[in-house]
Amino acid sequence: MNQHTEIHSSLRTVEWKNNTVIMIDQTKLPNKLEYVKFKDYRKVAQAIKDLVIRGAPAIGVAGAFGLALASLQSKAKTKEKLLEDLEKAKKILFETRPTAVNLAWGLDKIMQVASNGNTVDEIKKTVVDTAQKMAVEDVEINMRMGKFGSELFANNDTIMTHCNAGALATVGYGTALGVIRATRDSGKSIKVIATETRPVMQGSRLTAFELKHDNIDVSLIPDTAVGYAMSKGMVNKVVVGADRILSTGHVYNKIGTYQVATMAKQHNIPFYVAAPLSTFDLNSKPDDIIIEQRKASEVTGVAGKKTAPDGINVINPAFDMTPPELITGIITEVGVAKPPFVESIRKLFESKL
Amino acid sequence: MNQHTEIHSSLRTVEWKNNTVIMIDQTKLPNKLEYVKFKDYRKVAQAIKDLVIRGAPAIGVAGAFGLALASLQSKAKTKEKLLEDLEKAKKILFETRPTAVNLAWGLDKIMQVASNGNTVDEIKKTVVDTAQKMAVEDVEINMRMGKFGSELFANNDTIMTHCNAGALATVGYGTALGVIRATRDSGKSIKVIATETRPVMQGSRLTAFELKHDNIDVSLIPDTAVGYAMSKGMVNKVVVGADRILSTGHVYNKIGTYQVATMAKQHNIPFYVAAPLSTFDLNSKPDDIIIEQRKASEVTGVAGKKTAPDGINVINPAFDMTPPELITGIITEVGVAKPPFVESIRKLFESKL
Repeated sequence: MNQHTEIHSSLRTVEWKNNTVIMIDQTKLPNKLEYVKFKDYRKVAQAIKDLVIRGAPAIGVAGAFGLALASLQSKAKTKEKLLEDLEKAKKILFETRPTAVNLAWGLDKIMQVASNGNTVDEIKKTVVDTAQKMAVEDVEINMRMGKFGSELFANNDTIMTHCNAGALATVGYGTALGVIRATRDSGKSIKVIATETRPVMQGSRLTAFELKHDNIDVSLIPDTAVGYAMSKGMVNKVVVGADRILSTGHVYNKIGTYQVATMAKQHNIPFYVAAPLSTFDLNSKPDDIIIEQRKASEVTGVAGKKTAPDGINVINPAFDMTPPELITGIITEVGVAKPPFVESIRKLFESKL
Repeated sequence: MNQHTEIHSSLRTVEWKNNTVIMIDQTKLPNKLEYVKFKDYRKVAQAIKDLVIRGAPAIGVAGAFGLALASLQSKAKTKEKLLEDLEKAKKILFETRPTAVNLAWGLDKIMQVASNGNTVDEIKKTVVDTAQKMAVEDVEINMRMGKFGSELFANNDTIMTHCNAGALATVGYGTALGVIRATRDSGKSIKVIATETRPVMQGSRLTAFELKHDNIDVSLIPDTAVGYAMSKGMVNKVVVGADRILSTGHVYNKIGTYQVATMAKQHNIPFYVAAPLSTFDLNSKPDDIIIEQRKASEVTGVAGKKTAPDGINVINPAFDMTPPELITGIITEVGVAKPPFVESIRKLFESKL
């Protein structure tokens, strides 16, 4: 376990120290490993919006830390006024990434402990403590998920992953990449194929970076080469993260996941999703989910260089939906759900009670 | 037809003038429309390799022009010596893009007329004339292909295309985009969705550029959003070009074509390939085809900016193979082949005789 601890401490995506939120600035990766510090929750919101921090579990905790800052920033003298200030901050934090269910989950959890408090001082202390506890739990959850997931992978597997569901998408260790780390650490020899993941290139910038950092054999491919790699027998299994999972097993994840899953199905390659229970949205139906459109400049240029003509129309959805029939299993911290998902997901939540 | 003529003359990808080959430098698009001139066939070979010119039909003609330059450059006094010089030049030109069958086709056609000649002077003249005739024919073929193809598309269709099979992939007018131009010019209202086409971004740089130049409504998407756009009902049909088509209907085209075709099949969207008969390779079988691997730096960076960590492994195939069962029809200058392709492709070639 030494290796985990080392990686975990060297790639701590977000943490709370001396009433300050410290994050790795992921927009600078893979060229620079730079940390940014915030004492204002509005700056945390801007960082979430600008993808300084990203990945569903990480922004859940970042949102909670944002509310913790907001509680310290509040000059309220009464509980009611403090809750009002927190409610305002919550709204600003939430609107940065409305599709990611963990963000809402992290914010709601903090609002709940806040409303249960009695005095202003007590609420501030509880909010800060709870947010810190959520960060610790996030790593623990990923380690448990890794343990369940590692049993699904075999010695000499080459595993494809899309986007970054790694240490950098969580507080540490990772969901999909946590499963890959746990598989490697269980003694199996594995290789990884990472898709570049346009437009924001989390695969190139983050997944390739953190797997290389962890000495896991990783090859980068353009998103266009998924079908090629599978058709050439280069891929044994796929594992990705998720931004939102419905009770029916519909998975919302980074744009492109749906076609990776379709290609996997076409080649009889098992397709796994790794996500904590906090990613599940048991109330919504597929039609309810609004998929964010992101700014055109992500598609018309790369790293500040223009690659398309001026004034071109752009379609740039942040996520897509992968239907349950393309999914082999969903790996969580309490076990692996398999089809039929309506039943197996219900059981996961029952086991948690 | 005025519009064609105008576009055709303003976007002439490659031409022969005063014993010089003139090309649009496509690596500078979409930011600059710059022309380069060559009097040395080795520079033409380098330009093909560097994607200054690309697109199967365009490099077929560029290869022929390269041999025409080589014939003028030769100091041979005898037919035998001239053919030897041409053979040497052919080898250098061929090795720039070994998968693209049109290049071999263009080179072989020139070698054949050369070997039929009697004197050095006669051969030089015939070689130059033949290469120029091939350029004229390329545009005529595309116009005929466009006419056949336009009948497959309906008013108000949104058509997805991958890579650039446009005026810029041919001498002028285009194959897949020629079909789109012909559909628009037949009076139908159409829109286009162009995929970015990583790693070299021919969709962003070239397709978006030339369709906008031609006032055709075009939206750019990242390659990861193909499945999303189709699942949202945004796409009525797909049309792409081809680098090589076998007698069985197996299509080799830009990396990513296979997964666009798979997604189209999944959503019952017709998937068409537009390519001249010169793209067909009636002798090879799928197992015979070697897919070029291109340099890693195309994937680890964009426009000179690094987007992946140093020393990362890369898989960067130039092409993939789309099997016949995913293809609705193959549009050529003598008609449209439909499944079963073994039979319909044979008929196309019989009709040509």
